Amino acid sequence: MREVVIAGIGSTAFGRHAGTPIEQLAVRAAAEALIDSGLPRERIGAVYLGNFVSGPLNGKEVLAGIVADQLGLPNVPCTKVEGACASGGIAFRHAWLAVASGQCDAALVVGVETMTHAPTSQTTAALNCAMDNTNDGPSGLTFPGLFGLAWRQHAQRHGTTRAQVSAVVRKNKAAGLRNPLAQMGADLTDEQIAASAAICDPLQLFDCCPTSDGAAAVVVVARDCARGLPRLPVDVLATVQTRGASRIAGHPDLCSFDATVSAARQAFATAGLAPADVDVVELHDCFSIAEIIDGEDLGLMPRGHGGGWAAEGRTGIGGDVAINPSGGLLAKGHPVGATGVGQLYEVVRQLRGDHPNPVPGAAIGMTHNLGGTGVACTVTLLRRGDA
Amino acid sequence: MREVVIAGIGSTAFGRHAGTPIEQLAVRAAAEALIDSGLPRERIGAVYLGNFVSGPLNGKEVLAGIVADQLGLPNVPCTKVEGACASGGIAFRHAWLAVASGQCDAALVVGVETMTHAPTSQTTAALNCAMDNTNDGPSGLTFPGLFGLAWRQHAQRHGTTRAQVSAVVRKNKAAGLRNPLAQMGADLTDEQIAASAAICDPLQLFDCCPTSDGAAAVVVVARDCARGLPRLPVDVLATVQTRGASRIAGHPDLCSFDATVSAARQAFATAGLAPADVDVVELHDCFSIAEIIDGEDLGLMPRGHGGGWAAEGRTGIGGDVAINPSGGLLAKGHPVGATGVGQLYEVVRQLRGDHPNPVPGAAIGMTHNLGGTGVACTVTLLRRGDA
Repeated sequence: MREVVIAGIGSTAFGRHAGTPIEQLAVRAAAEALIDSGLPRERIGAVYLGNFVSGPLNGKEVLAGIVADQLGLPNVPCTKVEGACASGGIAFRHAWLAVASGQCDAALVVGVETMTHAPTSQTTAALNCAMDNTNDGPSGLTFPGLFGLAWRQHAQRHGTTRAQVSAVVRKNKAAGLRNPLAQMGADLTDEQIAASAAICDPLQLFDCCPTSDGAAAVVVVARDCARGLPRLPVDVLATVQTRGASRIAGHPDLCSFDATVSAARQAFATAGLAPADVDVVELHDCFSIAEIIDGEDLGLMPRGHGGGWAAEGRTGIGGDVAINPSGGLLAKGHPVGATGVGQLYEVVRQLRGDHPNPVPGAAIGMTHNLGGTGVACTVTLLRRGDA
Repeated sequence: MREVVIAGIGSTAFGRHAGTPIEQLAVRAAAEALIDSGLPRERIGAVYLGNFVSGPLNGKEVLAGIVADQLGLPNVPCTKVEGACASGGIAFRHAWLAVASGQCDAALVVGVETMTHAPTSQTTAALNCAMDNTNDGPSGLTFPGLFGLAWRQHAQRHGTTRAQVSAVVRKNKAAGLRNPLAQMGADLTDEQIAASAAICDPLQLFDCCPTSDGAAAVVVVARDCARGLPRLPVDVLATVQTRGASRIAGHPDLCSFDATVSAARQAFATAGLAPADVDVVELHDCFSIAEIIDGEDLGLMPRGHGGGWAAEGRTGIGGDVAINPSGGLLAKGHPVGATGVGQLYEVVRQLRGDHPNPVPGAAIGMTHNLGGTGVACTVTLLRRGDA
């Protein structure tokens, strides 16, 4: 396998883009990434597009080919991949694989979703496509229900408190204020969080990521082909895709997702790094409690200490590890297919040293993208090219 | 890149499976392929699932992970890929890539679709997800409309007649009678075809593939790891994925699909073969006229001679090249995401010498899977392992 770098990035704002066709959002982010990379478009040898529910919500598929055509890219393999909320991370891994294996020297990754135009009943039904509806459908659970149960179990086992979880919300919503691409930002008090609308006990409104539109894109290039490109390259040290149980009952423990644990272990082993080496992480905080679970699963803090670390500021900038300085899904937004690629966009900006909410001196970054009820996961480790 | 063989195949019947959840159809075909391969399931290192419209028609996504879990496969990357009607072929190419590049030694490919449970208005809308609806939607074209136009252009340019096109229908529907997995078979007369219901002038009912449910699966293995397996291996000589114009207006000529032409050229060049070397082909006859266009695009007969070759029996068993002895999409059926994998299933059975409608002595086989309005295409060349 050849060494691969990220040479270009692009992103639309995450938020409301109702009225903009989904392929146009994708084209906008991809064009920005191509220009940013300095690579002539003729050099792109594969396109991977991550998307989850454009079929049900837009009546549009084959988006990889449509986007490539509109960008004027050459006749190369164009593939949509889907793995629920991990679709973007899976798209990235496949572009990495195409380049690392020598199939091509450069590949374009795009993640995109549009959801805000649809009524809530329709987006809820679409999001539930990420569950095993045959087996778990009869439980009546939606994703807030699942993460509400996870919170209760985490609280019971580890003593995690409302105030600790609120520390996650306050950190991420405040970060959103400093990220121009974020859907929402706010300086919240614990009282405001606790008083926000009840969604699914114990989740309140501010514990849940919003419904979002958006697109993000990344250009990956073989290191040998990246000389002379304008941007500081970011090295892809490892990118791992795993599978977890597909049924909720298949998880022995709702306080942990096996797919995250195994992806992180494989990624650290491949990169020759340990969790303590990571300076900045964008992880899958679809709900506030998820940030705590994910951080523990990734090994960033000891099991059961995620709430405590959040409350003590150890997951903020200047703490032990900066988690979601973009605002995360909670504040930046969660245009599902775009999320995993958007995480890479954010970490690359951190490593380039031009993030609006900077983690000073960040050299090693990580992304974590989780799909469905933990059935799919990707973890990627990145390093600043001059580190 | 390592050499790769197909070591196992499985397929449900194509037809009506209403009431069977889509993931169960996929599991059935995949389990058959795994058993057929003789490979312990622990050896499977990647899963690729081709599917087009399970989201809109079933409300179910992340099928790759769900199917892998239900099969008891290990924790490996499980990816759904989508490229409209070429989804199955794209899934196969990615499994090949995973093995050829050394990511893993064996991979499972599954293609699946269920459509017959939905009302026609809904399946028509779902199928139109394969078009660039922003740009081509206002034309009002559905796929029968597009291929009706292609027929008219082919007739005008090359003098292709109703009788020549009916020869395709008669051949494929008759082949369907001999294929137990086919959705429909019939011994038809030209009069019966011409008198069948008008769909979209000049297409009659028998010119159109049916709406289908079904699943097919293939196990690919690195040649070095396939020793001692029970089945005669089938060599993957080349598998190519291309992109064509995404808008109908982007095609200079409706009588030809650029994506097919370029995929075939690349595949023959990679394999060191010429069209005349091919003994049996399963190609994308979503409509009768498509078989004629595809055959010409693949180089199997001179441009403009597709109709004549069909009428002269040169595309039947015993002719110059046996096209669609499975019955093709016209008679075997077209469960969209399954079709490309089903074509591989059929050709492997031909090369193993155990097809119910055999092409005697077949040593070189080909599959051709076309997506959308020609935006995605895969072509694969296979060789009998002892040839």
